[in-house]
Amino acid sequence: MTERAGSPDAASDEVRELVARARSGQARAVARLISMVENESPQLRAVMAALAPHTGNARVIGLTGSPGVGKSTCTSALVAAYRREGLRVGVLAVDPSSPFSGGALLGDRVRMNDHALDPGVYVRSMATRGHLGGLAWAVPQAVRVLDAAGCGVILIETVGVGQSEVDIAAQADTTVVLLAPGMGDGVQAAKAGILEVGDLFVVNKADRDGAGTTVRELQHMLGLGPPRAPGDWRPSVVRTVAARGEGVDELVAALAKHHGWLEEHDALAARRRRRAAGEIETIALTALRGRMAALRGDQRLGALAARVHAGELDPYAAADLLLEGLR
Amino acid sequence: MTERAGSPDAASDEVRELVARARSGQARAVARLISMVENESPQLRAVMAALAPHTGNARVIGLTGSPGVGKSTCTSALVAAYRREGLRVGVLAVDPSSPFSGGALLGDRVRMNDHALDPGVYVRSMATRGHLGGLAWAVPQAVRVLDAAGCGVILIETVGVGQSEVDIAAQADTTVVLLAPGMGDGVQAAKAGILEVGDLFVVNKADRDGAGTTVRELQHMLGLGPPRAPGDWRPSVVRTVAARGEGVDELVAALAKHHGWLEEHDALAARRRRRAAGEIETIALTALRGRMAALRGDQRLGALAARVHAGELDPYAAADLLLEGLR
Repeated sequence: MTERAGSPDAASDEVRELVARARSGQARAVARLISMVENESPQLRAVMAALAPHTGNARVIGLTGSPGVGKSTCTSALVAAYRREGLRVGVLAVDPSSPFSGGALLGDRVRMNDHALDPGVYVRSMATRGHLGGLAWAVPQAVRVLDAAGCGVILIETVGVGQSEVDIAAQADTTVVLLAPGMGDGVQAAKAGILEVGDLFVVNKADRDGAGTTVRELQHMLGLGPPRAPGDWRPSVVRTVAARGEGVDELVAALAKHHGWLEEHDALAARRRRRAAGEIETIALTALRGRMAALRGDQRLGALAARVHAGELDPYAAADLLLEGLR
Repeated sequence: MTERAGSPDAASDEVRELVARARSGQARAVARLISMVENESPQLRAVMAALAPHTGNARVIGLTGSPGVGKSTCTSALVAAYRREGLRVGVLAVDPSSPFSGGALLGDRVRMNDHALDPGVYVRSMATRGHLGGLAWAVPQAVRVLDAAGCGVILIETVGVGQSEVDIAAQADTTVVLLAPGMGDGVQAAKAGILEVGDLFVVNKADRDGAGTTVRELQHMLGLGPPRAPGDWRPSVVRTVAARGEGVDELVAALAKHHGWLEEHDALAARRRRRAAGEIETIALTALRGRMAALRGDQRLGALAARVHAGELDPYAAADLLLEGLR
């Protein structure tokens, strides 16, 4: 290939520099890259290509549960714990049902302010913004950015417990489901699809009345599933009072235990390959949907229709020509 | 290209022969070709390529209206009239809501038996059968078969008045909307989207009470539309008692008048180009949908995901490779 001057190379120079700055830990470069994900920047392909060799090191932990169970408090406590271990930590607060993004939720996340001045913590909220592929498309790419930026742990906190939230949390290496006592039958609500995705269960606000009942109900339900093969992971239940830091060490230990189990059983690579497969599929489907949208009102359609009308071309050959032009 | 022995050439020889036999008027060859359309035969591309140079000669007339207004009777009367003019006639009886096809409806179409032994008439019923592109995909292709088979007139009769039926009937050169007096406010029902697509309106069973009212209401409503430019086509209303052949000559004359208007105003070619454009678009969309379906569970996805997981490939590059493999 001959060298070409002009914008494509300038663009990749810019991307290369941005990626280098993000890798050296500059929060503004990380923010810029995640914004490029959110805005579906045309440079995203170049970004992802530049990030690829530097990914695969972060532990990704998903946290899901009904509003009010204390997810943010718990996330904040985990951030503090991992910071004590000397790890850089990334937090993605994801709200699939909200069109607002980029900090809109953080007002609600007061405890996150504990880490606002810590350069080793990167917090970002993400919402749908009408992405073609939705957050299923954007979240894994934001994870790649944080991973390449040297975060040893990435916490994905979802806001509700809808199907999209559960799907996003379930993309993690370890999925944590949070409950609280007396949350209007949180356990009942959780039955739907949450029990299957949880690797760990946290009963937060465990100093409240009914905590014991919630734990017992949960353990009972977890015991009801299909019998496990020996060596299978058995979800554990941890009690916390995250606001006072109680039980957080136990949670961190349980998370480490699950991570160890994943590595020991070759399950970590399997989960991550499955995650990559979902990511590839989503990008490919988004590309095909984009082509479908581009078909309608394509200017070449009129000319092709005239040739079909004249009997010069059959409609299949015309459709082939139309699709070729979309590549 | 070197000569290759084997199925592709054998297949196109078979297609060529079938098309030649259909063009010479053999009903079984026509039936076979339309079945290939209905069954989405892999040879359909070859069929359409072979038909293309022989299409564009038939006048295509769509008939729509609520069940019970006498569409079949009217269709049958038109068949007889065009046979008297010496034209070969094709009839497609289309039921988008039924999964049954290929004659299932004909039991209900007793009057069509008048033409059962006439080799100059080809009657076929079509239903959805779970086509990817639905009848919007199959009907125009069946029209091409009948057109290439030498039908001077093709009548597309739809069974109900749902949106799909109206869409199909509106693909014709001339769209005829049928009503009957006292059909539980047929006119009211017709308002929805039918007035806009009708080039001609037939009040059938015009010997019944209330026929005059129905005609007046219809004319009133047709007058309510946006003002027409001079030279625009003004839909006319014809009264018939199709079962006794009354008004059929007037309907044939009105159809000829509309056809003449279309030719005079260059509107015939415009309508047919629009039809071809819709056909191309539907085929292209169907192809893209097929690719989307093929993506899920593609065997190469696992291998690509492993490469992304290893950091060898970014997910965009992997999605490109996946899409390329689908072509």
